[in-house]
Amino acid sequence: MEEIMLAPSTPEPGFRRAKAALALGFSLCAGAPALADVTLINVFEVPEGRLSETISAWEAARDYLEEQPGYVSTELHRALAEDARFALVNVAIWRSVDDFMAASRAMAENDLFPEVEGLGVNPALYRVIEGAE
Amino acid sequence: MEEIMLAPSTPEPGFRRAKAALALGFSLCAGAPALADVTLINVFEVPEGRLSETISAWEAARDYLEEQPGYVSTELHRALAEDARFALVNVAIWRSVDDFMAASRAMAENDLFPEVEGLGVNPALYRVIEGAE
Repeated sequence: MEEIMLAPSTPEPGFRRAKAALALGFSLCAGAPALADVTLINVFEVPEGRLSETISAWEAARDYLEEQPGYVSTELHRALAEDARFALVNVAIWRSVDDFMAASRAMAENDLFPEVEGLGVNPALYRVIEGAE
Repeated sequence: MEEIMLAPSTPEPGFRRAKAALALGFSLCAGAPALADVTLINVFEVPEGRLSETISAWEAARDYLEEQPGYVSTELHRALAEDARFALVNVAIWRSVDDFMAASRAMAENDLFPEVEGLGVNPALYRVIEGAE
């Protein structure tokens, strides 16, 4: 299994720190092999009263990322419960680890993700290990 | 928006407590309307050395749930990074809130989910609010 560090081990208070964590992740996994079909899951801990602002920030990121090579699809999920621990969860498919890394690095370097005060983000790459319909 | 409380606000140390939280959730949302196509996302905080045991517990739950009315599909995602905050994320589709609630209540009442010491579970119901391909 390749070693890829994307998610900070504790919630980040804002996107500046999240972006720093992402940049660290890129440096740690330089040279990771490109493999087909990875899923980015980003679990958002949204501060009270910041839901609309967070959705707008996500839309800005989405607008950029969906134009990048290797992007396949994305879905933003909103919790039905007002007090859910994770109010938003993004599930996105990318063609490969390398494609996602390159796109995210470019987004971070160009400061394209609006900062949301107090927002906790937990982006990490996954693969489906069991599926059934 | 309907009020549905499924996820505990803090990580639960084991499935006994998680099941109690789920039972509380059911009582809080009794009478919630059934609406089509909801997504259950369960974010797992897996203690070190407990990954295989957690996957086996998930499989036992899946074997039961996939036979219940309203089940549509499920996918268990495993993080690529060994030290990801959330090592496993389950994303399952159900036909309605009520179908999922009935199936989960039956599973909890029959003690069908094997306990995993120290496992944090965060089940919550979601709907896709934005999607793009």
